[in-house]
Amino acid sequence: MAIHQETITLSPKSKGFHLITPEIEKALLSMPSIERGLLHLFIKHTSASLSINENADPSVREDMENFFTDIADEKPYYIHTYEGSDDMPAHIKSSMLGNSLSIPITNGRMNLGTWQGIENTAETAVL
Amino acid sequence: MAIHQETITLSPKSKGFHLITPEIEKALLSMPSIERGLLHLFIKHTSASLSINENADPSVREDMENFFTDIADEKPYYIHTYEGSDDMPAHIKSSMLGNSLSIPITNGRMNLGTWQGIENTAETAVL
Amino acid sequence: MAIHQETITLSPKSKGFHLITPEIEKALLSMPSIERGLLHLFIKHTSASLSINENADPSVREDMENFFTDIADEKPYYIHTYEGSDDMPAHIKSSMLGNSLSIPITNGRMNLGTWQGIENTAETAVL
Repeated sequence: MAIHQETITLSPKSKGFHLITPEIEKALLSMPSIERGLLHLFIKHTSASLSINENADPSVREDMENFFTDIADEKPYYIHTYEGSDDMPAHIKSSMLGNSLSIPITNGRMNLGTWQGIENTAETAVL
Repeated sequence: MAIHQETITLSPKSKGFHLITPEIEKALLSMPSIERGLLHLFIKHTSASLSINENADPSVREDMENFFTDIADEKPYYIHTYEGSDDMPAHIKSSMLGNSLSIPITNGRMNLGTWQGIENTAETAVL
Repeated sequence: MAIHQETITLSPKSKGFHLITPEIEKALLSMPSIERGLLHLFIKHTSASLSINENADPSVREDMENFFTDIADEKPYYIHTYEGSDDMPAHIKSSMLGNSLSIPITNGRMNLGTWQGIENTAETAVL
């Protein structure tokens, strides 16, 4: 089995959840074709995340953002606030959702479920 | 190193956390034996999750379900509700717990800790 | 591609979030050098976790601990309390943050972002 590593640069994103399946698919096109294997995506930030969620209704992404705002924003006990009040919520999202994904490659394509999309959260345009 | 891919169909599950270690172990029996490697499990849904948790006391799974109900159910700001009020909580569980696991295979078996079990959440019988 | 497996024993940790990048780097020194590959870390516990977060300001780790205390401690509905009131919060952290990490190895080193550190949570000295 061969291993191939490459850096993908995502387009800048606004605060919130973003569907990036097309960006990843496009990046894979210029990489060596793999018939069967595992795609490992790793985001080199602590204020951004990668996750898999519903790809159809954009309301899901809006609800996700509002849910994290609800549970993690503006806690009176946060000490780490000098980078802005949205910094700790970004670290929490990144830790809870995770910063990497492993996706099976089957027949040369990402073997995602019908409704699965790759999502990226960013607080500011960090990518 | 060889790579082997196979589809496992889980039995239908009720809403909640379920221990699926025996189902996975049974599925592995019919696959090529691997002495040392990495088992990557990936669930092709956005309303179901895979995680690792205590395998002994079923109360842990009940507490987990009640905890997610507590933090994520019936938020007044949810927009994505046309598939039911339990749909967003399912997406949140799936995103927070994750939809894949990577487990070392050592001496031909999953190298789990004594108390570690593979758990699956489902909202309805989606699998 | 070769596969190498080894057990790393972490030093005992107090309750909270701990930066363990140096411990992992030190452990890697005694393993076969890999130019390009994937490091998979898997913690064999259900009351401990592995995650990636900011490595610079220790306040981030303090805020993370306080955030999880805030959302998960002392819920009146917890049934699984006979191992102590901090046991369910530990399982929740472990499930939400995850018990494994996959980190690219590039040019013989972990290819982490500048601010990324490997973090471990423990409730008691379980490792």
